Amino acid sequence: MGKSRLEAFSDGVLAIIITIMVLELHIPEGDTLAALHKLVPIFLNYGLSFIYVGIYWNNHHHLLHTLRRVSGGILWANLHLLFWLSLLPFVTGWMGENHTAAMPVALYGVVLLLAAAAYSILEAAIIRSDGKTSLLARAIGRDLKGKLSLVAYALGIGLAFVAPWAAQTLYAAVA
Amino acid sequence: MGKSRLEAFSDGVLAIIITIMVLELHIPEGDTLAALHKLVPIFLNYGLSFIYVGIYWNNHHHLLHTLRRVSGGILWANLHLLFWLSLLPFVTGWMGENHTAAMPVALYGVVLLLAAAAYSILEAAIIRSDGKTSLLARAIGRDLKGKLSLVAYALGIGLAFVAPWAAQTLYAAVA
Amino acid sequence: MGKSRLEAFSDGVLAIIITIMVLELHIPEGDTLAALHKLVPIFLNYGLSFIYVGIYWNNHHHLLHTLRRVSGGILWANLHLLFWLSLLPFVTGWMGENHTAAMPVALYGVVLLLAAAAYSILEAAIIRSDGKTSLLARAIGRDLKGKLSLVAYALGIGLAFVAPWAAQTLYAAVA
Amino acid sequence: MGKSRLEAFSDGVLAIIITIMVLELHIPEGDTLAALHKLVPIFLNYGLSFIYVGIYWNNHHHLLHTLRRVSGGILWANLHLLFWLSLLPFVTGWMGENHTAAMPVALYGVVLLLAAAAYSILEAAIIRSDGKTSLLARAIGRDLKGKLSLVAYALGIGLAFVAPWAAQTLYAAVA
Repeated sequence: MGKSRLEAFSDGVLAIIITIMVLELHIPEGDTLAALHKLVPIFLNYGLSFIYVGIYWNNHHHLLHTLRRVSGGILWANLHLLFWLSLLPFVTGWMGENHTAAMPVALYGVVLLLAAAAYSILEAAIIRSDGKTSLLARAIGRDLKGKLSLVAYALGIGLAFVAPWAAQTLYAAVA
Repeated sequence: MGKSRLEAFSDGVLAIIITIMVLELHIPEGDTLAALHKLVPIFLNYGLSFIYVGIYWNNHHHLLHTLRRVSGGILWANLHLLFWLSLLPFVTGWMGENHTAAMPVALYGVVLLLAAAAYSILEAAIIRSDGKTSLLARAIGRDLKGKLSLVAYALGIGLAFVAPWAAQTLYAAVA
Repeated sequence: MGKSRLEAFSDGVLAIIITIMVLELHIPEGDTLAALHKLVPIFLNYGLSFIYVGIYWNNHHHLLHTLRRVSGGILWANLHLLFWLSLLPFVTGWMGENHTAAMPVALYGVVLLLAAAAYSILEAAIIRSDGKTSLLARAIGRDLKGKLSLVAYALGIGLAFVAPWAAQTLYAAVA
Repeated sequence: MGKSRLEAFSDGVLAIIITIMVLELHIPEGDTLAALHKLVPIFLNYGLSFIYVGIYWNNHHHLLHTLRRVSGGILWANLHLLFWLSLLPFVTGWMGENHTAAMPVALYGVVLLLAAAAYSILEAAIIRSDGKTSLLARAIGRDLKGKLSLVAYALGIGLAFVAPWAAQTLYAAVA
């Protein structure tokens, strides 16, 4: 499989994910500032998820930049990553409507954790395919940040049951 | 017609299909784990359909890889395939909300069957256009798997009226 | 402006239009065949609109194939065409839910008429830009079919107020 | 980062924004012309936002045309622009449903203002990256129009609290 079609498909999916999240910003009933007020946490979560998808898109580009041939493993590792990212609009909307509740905030962290894990798997699949040269060295550097993110998300999931606002702050800080 | 624009359009449609399916995961009313619980079958079906679209995208790529010129027949056979795949979000959502009922599970199988048939038609159109060389040989190999899939989907449609869970297991096994 | 980006943007919009139409196929309440029954006219209209967008995408490709440079006029004529086509999901859904009523069937024809007119305007803008050579000759041949379509749509709009089913049959026949 | 992938992603997001706006045109309850009547202001706003996205897409193309290398700053300035534009479907829908109310009309202006500011930031980031040559000269010419737009949007936001229709007319005139 050519790299360009993998990139085009991934770009398409990421562009749709980042854009349909706005559909969770339901048009309010009234026409006043008060009607808009309860949308504020949803809007903030939308912004956070927008940044996350932007970062994934950016990193995804760098990851594929050095790639020479697309194996079946890379292809499915890529789809696996897109699968978890495709759940972001759903968990963003749920957390936005219930930003003080434990479960929605924890679930948002679970999806971030699984997406980050999927990204590591994709990274490993590309390293295995392209051989252990200069790319690997760079990847290890990135891996450290990746592992720290995983720990932070796990921490955030736990925090959600104690102080949801602290978990959300952590998610934003890690981004 | 150039191949690249056919690929770009197909990639676009497949990327949208795979992503808007998540819109059927409606945000639950409550903020508890219980509220999330009834979404589990919808989520599993979403995962299954995600894999199906991923497989079709992957196979579609291989199919078009050897293609040299795009005839009108190939173009319409391709749109015909995309039409049945575009119904996946609808039948995924209906089966997800009624995963123990015969009709939604059967309809999901009908759409899989028609998409698989459409894929065979596209395959045949490409073979006819490109001539009977090495491609054909590979295509026949794939055709066998294709014919078995058709039988399995037909079986699943029948099974749906006896044991919906068995039909769903079969759909997942064939993927 | 390069032609490739105009094509990519148009392909993106057309791919989204063709795919979000399926969102008007709302998941029915029950899990029986009867529940599905009232979706039949919506489904048929979806199929019809799918074919229309497919034809427009195909013709659009041929139209741009000979294009050498994209002027501002062509760019806006293209956006004008996409605007009317973007209304197809709306009128498809309205006609699908009220397929025996005059107004929705007439409005569907109005959008087809305006899209066809927009296509003629785009065609004229391209001919003006590229000069009057062999392209023009081919375009005139197509133009005849185009003018007949305009007449047919206008006829269909009138028919909608007498016999909506006849208007719908006409729309399908002209496609 | 290559320019082509930045363009492809931006085109994808803009194509989705321009197309999902039509989803705010909810299918009316009845089947009469009266049922359609209250959609008229939503439709007009949809048309206005369509033109705005079209202009941004067009300008975006020209802006990136001279770009040689994509820095991290340009990438994030671009995502920042897409973020504000992604809110257009939301504010279009809210203003459409409440076109005589101050707050929705003002908010539409706020999003236009922030998008225009984001465009200026992207412009500045590109000039800084590519150096102060002929591009800069052209950019300054455009900047003047850009600064006037910013003033007009700010004026429109104020006007919305006095005469919403006048603010909407101003938004349309500036486009």
